[in-house]
Amino acid sequence: MAKAEQQNTAIVLATFGTATASALGGLLAVNAAMAAAFPQTPVKLAFTSNQIRRIWHRRATDPAYVAAHPQVPADIFRVQGILAAIANLQDRGHDTLVVQPTHIAPAEEFHDLAAYVRGLASIRTLKPRWQPFKTIALGRPLLGTYHQGHPYADDIRLTAHALAGDAALARSHDAALVYMGHGNRFFPSGGLYLECAARMRQLYPEVLTLIGTIEGFPSLAEVVADLRLHKARRVLLKPFLLVAGEHATRDLAGPDEDSWQSILTRQGFEVIPVLKGLGEHPAVARIFVDHAAQAAAEAGVELR
Amino acid sequence: MAKAEQQNTAIVLATFGTATASALGGLLAVNAAMAAAFPQTPVKLAFTSNQIRRIWHRRATDPAYVAAHPQVPADIFRVQGILAAIANLQDRGHDTLVVQPTHIAPAEEFHDLAAYVRGLASIRTLKPRWQPFKTIALGRPLLGTYHQGHPYADDIRLTAHALAGDAALARSHDAALVYMGHGNRFFPSGGLYLECAARMRQLYPEVLTLIGTIEGFPSLAEVVADLRLHKARRVLLKPFLLVAGEHATRDLAGPDEDSWQSILTRQGFEVIPVLKGLGEHPAVARIFVDHAAQAAAEAGVELR
Amino acid sequence: MAKAEQQNTAIVLATFGTATASALGGLLAVNAAMAAAFPQTPVKLAFTSNQIRRIWHRRATDPAYVAAHPQVPADIFRVQGILAAIANLQDRGHDTLVVQPTHIAPAEEFHDLAAYVRGLASIRTLKPRWQPFKTIALGRPLLGTYHQGHPYADDIRLTAHALAGDAALARSHDAALVYMGHGNRFFPSGGLYLECAARMRQLYPEVLTLIGTIEGFPSLAEVVADLRLHKARRVLLKPFLLVAGEHATRDLAGPDEDSWQSILTRQGFEVIPVLKGLGEHPAVARIFVDHAAQAAAEAGVELR
Amino acid sequence: MAKAEQQNTAIVLATFGTATASALGGLLAVNAAMAAAFPQTPVKLAFTSNQIRRIWHRRATDPAYVAAHPQVPADIFRVQGILAAIANLQDRGHDTLVVQPTHIAPAEEFHDLAAYVRGLASIRTLKPRWQPFKTIALGRPLLGTYHQGHPYADDIRLTAHALAGDAALARSHDAALVYMGHGNRFFPSGGLYLECAARMRQLYPEVLTLIGTIEGFPSLAEVVADLRLHKARRVLLKPFLLVAGEHATRDLAGPDEDSWQSILTRQGFEVIPVLKGLGEHPAVARIFVDHAAQAAAEAGVELR
Repeated sequence: MAKAEQQNTAIVLATFGTATASALGGLLAVNAAMAAAFPQTPVKLAFTSNQIRRIWHRRATDPAYVAAHPQVPADIFRVQGILAAIANLQDRGHDTLVVQPTHIAPAEEFHDLAAYVRGLASIRTLKPRWQPFKTIALGRPLLGTYHQGHPYADDIRLTAHALAGDAALARSHDAALVYMGHGNRFFPSGGLYLECAARMRQLYPEVLTLIGTIEGFPSLAEVVADLRLHKARRVLLKPFLLVAGEHATRDLAGPDEDSWQSILTRQGFEVIPVLKGLGEHPAVARIFVDHAAQAAAEAGVELR
Repeated sequence: MAKAEQQNTAIVLATFGTATASALGGLLAVNAAMAAAFPQTPVKLAFTSNQIRRIWHRRATDPAYVAAHPQVPADIFRVQGILAAIANLQDRGHDTLVVQPTHIAPAEEFHDLAAYVRGLASIRTLKPRWQPFKTIALGRPLLGTYHQGHPYADDIRLTAHALAGDAALARSHDAALVYMGHGNRFFPSGGLYLECAARMRQLYPEVLTLIGTIEGFPSLAEVVADLRLHKARRVLLKPFLLVAGEHATRDLAGPDEDSWQSILTRQGFEVIPVLKGLGEHPAVARIFVDHAAQAAAEAGVELR
Repeated sequence: MAKAEQQNTAIVLATFGTATASALGGLLAVNAAMAAAFPQTPVKLAFTSNQIRRIWHRRATDPAYVAAHPQVPADIFRVQGILAAIANLQDRGHDTLVVQPTHIAPAEEFHDLAAYVRGLASIRTLKPRWQPFKTIALGRPLLGTYHQGHPYADDIRLTAHALAGDAALARSHDAALVYMGHGNRFFPSGGLYLECAARMRQLYPEVLTLIGTIEGFPSLAEVVADLRLHKARRVLLKPFLLVAGEHATRDLAGPDEDSWQSILTRQGFEVIPVLKGLGEHPAVARIFVDHAAQAAAEAGVELR
Repeated sequence: MAKAEQQNTAIVLATFGTATASALGGLLAVNAAMAAAFPQTPVKLAFTSNQIRRIWHRRATDPAYVAAHPQVPADIFRVQGILAAIANLQDRGHDTLVVQPTHIAPAEEFHDLAAYVRGLASIRTLKPRWQPFKTIALGRPLLGTYHQGHPYADDIRLTAHALAGDAALARSHDAALVYMGHGNRFFPSGGLYLECAARMRQLYPEVLTLIGTIEGFPSLAEVVADLRLHKARRVLLKPFLLVAGEHATRDLAGPDEDSWQSILTRQGFEVIPVLKGLGEHPAVARIFVDHAAQAAAEAGVELR
């Protein structure tokens, strides 16, 4: 590929977003890994949550907030949604895009993102030279998706390897490792989480790794039943989410009686919460980088 | 809806197909339930497997075979694929179609079928009156699919109820109930099977219901681990497939050493195989009928 | 291309159809030219008019009609619409199709046909090997369409050349040549007809060639104004339609006072009607054959 | 419609753009008419020409240019393409858009614009409430397009009425009125121009109105032949283009020997060039406004 063409290439890192400033780390780590891997390619962050974008735009107009949060990059304060992020790159001449989600599972959000990419890629001008995009490729979520060249089970296996540190930490505490995934009442994704937990039990047989989801199947009740069956007493509880945002601080470890920590504690387990997002594992960030590179390569683009 | 319009409506029952004459029962039962529920609406069977259609077309030219199999309906001998089944109905003036899959899970085959329906429904003539179809609706598989009005979890729950007879039979043998689902190496569907088994364990707590898949996750190894964990000794083994065709006679209960019956027996379990397809449960056939009626109703069509 | 693959190729000749048995000639001539040009490839005729198909299907059940019309091929009596014609070829294993319209202009009917082809071509199974079609290509109408490789003006030029015989005939009668095109009140196609007439006037400057349409612009009134401007007295009147069916026998040369012949005669012109369809010109049939071959070639298929 | 919803509505005025500052008038007139007609709805201008956008962006960085052109609005200096214009509105919460082209004919540029709109409108999130757009409607070009409710011939008739001033001006000079349209070598649009000229000759029979195109059919040669046939001597020559930009100053009235003025003069006609764009006729601007209102109304949106 000629140098000139490379200048037309850009990466969009598509994420739900988080309003928790302290949770940005998991996200910015993936962003930084992407930028480091492809130093000649601009990486643009997009937040798909309308509500969270508005929160940051409001904060941007609050000098006190800005001053108090020097660690928040300027890009976050003016972050756009997926359509505007893509369109503004296109308007500046970037006609070759790789859209890399930070999603964990190929569920509702990933399908919606794919709908945006498909809609944009479907635009066909009568003369090829006026096409808005030469290429607009979509990377796989962490746990993969339907893909003949990259079976999702392989992606799950790589993720299970990337989480070795979590298993080691649980083992050092002589605890079961329980992840809290997000899940979805309408869109089945529980099987991927269960398969990932099964792979981790194979890789790290000395640690009982289980996973439940906030919404849908498998629920915490299923996790508790399994903990009981295996006679576990101590639990290392960690979000299976990119960032340790509100779900982590409230639903996982919050003081409310229906937080997972509260419930597990009431049921007699000793709970050690770990409020770190998956994005903070460098090996996990690396998987997102690899997925972007593979999506690009399959579209005939070499990211640099 | 006026009488005249109803005459334009037809149902296509889309199934992979089976080359095993004795296994047609599970399929014809669903077909018969559909015809009984909507006596004024033609029901057309389509086999999506090119190979299986060719087997039946070859048999149709073999008078000895035809004579020896009086129970095989004429429609099976000349069965067509999904596109031709739909198009020939359209050519005869049926512009309102409900395509009801007999698929168990919303996996590869269902997505391919949806691609056919979407492609056909996307045809837009300049004048609405020349549209090939007024409506072409797609029903949900047995275990549901993404649907805001009918969460897949509700479909799983209905299926778990419909399988009460299997749980009762296992209980009468004091056996665990182990289902063999199909699964897919590329397309994750295991979570739906696992959720269905979990629902059955809730509904029928005295029976340990487990499910494994021929391809993908969860495998028989995962089932065996769970059987061991629960100290099960006896297993009622049954296909979680529409028909008890080749998978049932070979992969489940075949004499080969890698059939599930052989493996489980070698591992010390007492195995009671039951070679019946899910379609043979009237309550399961009824779910497919309901899914067709609901898909029709959502498209503004009342099946009669 | 390997021999085996050629067996998967077929041509669909898509035409509005005609209920006039004597007018089939213009259509069958194109069909025969196609079959002669590609002897190893089946050619299937499709009638897009629902009404005309039903007329032939009714006639097929009338032994007296069939006996009285031995020149009507059996394929006409059981002719299907575009969707069923394509789908039944696909069902028999033809996954590489060239759909060649017999349309004159790229107007409403061509766009509707393109919508069918686009809808069918949009079907994407998850695994490429289950695609219903490897290729489904669409040929250009007689007067071309938007195409970067084959500008429509070149197709018009070829048509003007192919109609040399009409110009010679008009000249031998010392008459202006007036074509009756179909036109469309909603879809602008008049410019293509006018451009074709302008090209004929350049090629055959000694003959005043004009064209009007039954519907839309330019109307017969515009033609009459031009005839007057050029002081023409005698008019050779011929359909600019594939077949000389009902439009020719009724609207062009019918005894009613609003047929073009009646109107022109009343306005003082001497009218010589010629009831032959464009398809009866071998050079016109050849253009349709070439368009099919070019559409195939652009899709990487060699028709044989 | 509730007040709150109206705040979500916006208009995008899509135009090729012009780099000629003095020619912006024709465009800004349409923009102003739109803003005046719908005072509560933001109107955003988009230039589809990449090259022209870059020229304005470069000028924006040149303080001398900006100072010397106080009549150029700030929006022009930072104008974006169609995708970014739409996406930035969407990002700010406008989910109900009317895209109104300033195109004269439904030719290449209009079809490309329609492809953008269709691609964006095709985005389907799993849950309706996350759709990027509630509605994205596309208005008709000046001369209409295929539309069952608004036959293009009616739009042409309205345009012919709107151009009464041109006919009156030509008459006052005892001149034929010759328009220079743009045309397209690949995409047939000449028939619409010819139909418009025919309508004007009917409405203003005392003026010979003719039209030729820079590219494609009908060419200037065809116009000259008609001028000769009607024995015209004097010609009022005017662009049939939204703005009187480079085509007007160079191709129509430029000093080069192949400008239309030079050619017509050499051929013995007396030429009176009028360098005004169609957009400068308030009645033409009004048609674009009406087309936007109708597109909105058909989509269930009332523009205010």
